Amino acid sequence: MENIVIGVDMGATHIRICLMNLQGNILLTERRKTQNVIAKGLVQGLTDFCQQFAKTDKVSQIVIGLPAAISKDRRQVLSVPNIAFSQAEFNQISPALSAHFHCPVKLERDVNLQLVYDVYHHDIKDKLVLGAYLGTGMGFAIWLNGELFIGSHGVAGELGHIPYGDEKIQCNCGNQGCLETVCSGIALKRWYDSQPFDFPMDLLFQQKANDDFVQHYLNHAAKAVSAAVNLFDADALILGGGVMDMQDFPLPKLKQLIAQYVRKPLPYQELSIIKAESSSFNGAIGAALFALTQQEKK
Amino acid sequence: MENIVIGVDMGATHIRICLMNLQGNILLTERRKTQNVIAKGLVQGLTDFCQQFAKTDKVSQIVIGLPAAISKDRRQVLSVPNIAFSQAEFNQISPALSAHFHCPVKLERDVNLQLVYDVYHHDIKDKLVLGAYLGTGMGFAIWLNGELFIGSHGVAGELGHIPYGDEKIQCNCGNQGCLETVCSGIALKRWYDSQPFDFPMDLLFQQKANDDFVQHYLNHAAKAVSAAVNLFDADALILGGGVMDMQDFPLPKLKQLIAQYVRKPLPYQELSIIKAESSSFNGAIGAALFALTQQEKK
Repeated sequence: MENIVIGVDMGATHIRICLMNLQGNILLTERRKTQNVIAKGLVQGLTDFCQQFAKTDKVSQIVIGLPAAISKDRRQVLSVPNIAFSQAEFNQISPALSAHFHCPVKLERDVNLQLVYDVYHHDIKDKLVLGAYLGTGMGFAIWLNGELFIGSHGVAGELGHIPYGDEKIQCNCGNQGCLETVCSGIALKRWYDSQPFDFPMDLLFQQKANDDFVQHYLNHAAKAVSAAVNLFDADALILGGGVMDMQDFPLPKLKQLIAQYVRKPLPYQELSIIKAESSSFNGAIGAALFALTQQEKK
Repeated sequence: MENIVIGVDMGATHIRICLMNLQGNILLTERRKTQNVIAKGLVQGLTDFCQQFAKTDKVSQIVIGLPAAISKDRRQVLSVPNIAFSQAEFNQISPALSAHFHCPVKLERDVNLQLVYDVYHHDIKDKLVLGAYLGTGMGFAIWLNGELFIGSHGVAGELGHIPYGDEKIQCNCGNQGCLETVCSGIALKRWYDSQPFDFPMDLLFQQKANDDFVQHYLNHAAKAVSAAVNLFDADALILGGGVMDMQDFPLPKLKQLIAQYVRKPLPYQELSIIKAESSSFNGAIGAALFALTQQEKK
């Protein structure tokens, strides 16, 4: 029996878990289909999922990452992720698991936990770091003063929803023309589906890197990320996410555009641009690392 | 003889001073033509300008606001303001005045001092506040965790230089297509000068509020400001500056566009939008208030 923290990264397709001891050593990482885990209900499914790995260990803190906006106190969801349960059910996760494991249970925006992982992995906890994760959406997170920056109401960093997209398209968030309407995995897939391509989407950048759409797509990403770099005056920018992990993604071109748009002489001269590693367990490991910091705060 | 701090707000046209005692009471505000003050040289002119008002008072701290990017240590300029002296001469201000007055002398970005004034005036020091000041440029400043947020290298908040302008126009900063190319007093005057208008520029909004250019202009401002609100998840947004102080500036329309672009439900539901007062001494008073906080830090 050991004292541990648990990090969970719950997506619409897969759910991942990381068990970590209080010295920060990873004890276990596992992955399951989300659908199977929550077949018996969201709260019961999550409880059993954590319990089956924790066994008899004493759990000190649990952090659960979700693709959702989270309340300032990190115990409720403000938007319902793309997982077929109601807001009320999501809001039962924290109290129910807290009662079961006799420890604090916090929810967190999944992309914030990706950034926690990257900040620890690259040992830049003392820097001002921005993380741009181009996946299904345009994920973005901010590391400031040695911790995640979540803003006044818990919803800072919504780069995907700045109003620099296609005003004719309504975003999933309800607003018209958010950045994600032109710069996200969804926007990329919409374009792919509209074209008569005879290759799988995985090979999009290998086949079409010089297409005008791809050039505009990179330009949208570079402008938005550069705007954030200029506003926060960051030390480091992490670039990652499923789209950037696709074969032959034109990362050098993206970096060149960012260098073009970032303000001179500063932050341009001092900005480090770092490619995130693409391990699928980073979110869960980040959740466990974050749980550990919450533990230290007690 | 009294212990005082001095705040100076130095623009290309006017220079303003505020003397404040250590209890935060304003003792004096004065304004002169910048050209006359610095006729005998930048450092000598500034020294004499401060000395003539300070007389025999003991000066504890001086803060000088400039329309320039300032080094992280607040003692040098990174860009030269539109005042006819070299970078080397600007960099003599802090050491020379410090030696003369036997106190610390710091330079500050002028728009940051505007925000200090507004944050004190509205008593919102405990809030996350963004200030957008549409004047000659698109001034922007950030108040976070009870103090000015200046980023990793001292240059945070450069909303005027996010890459959402007209890519065909080179910005004064050297980059192409910064926001200021379409959203600044300069951009407004460029348009006014290109039109066959027979009314003075002061009446632009009274005469042409419904012109397409003005509508696009407001839209540029609203998008940029909303992007910053979404990224920082602010409590309050201060709107001010010379353009917004012009007669019949369509502030309700600007506010409506911002409400349209800010992310729902948060920060939208909780965001306060506040019009800045348009007194010309706010920058100098803000400089003195900021000098006082530096004094407390010692």
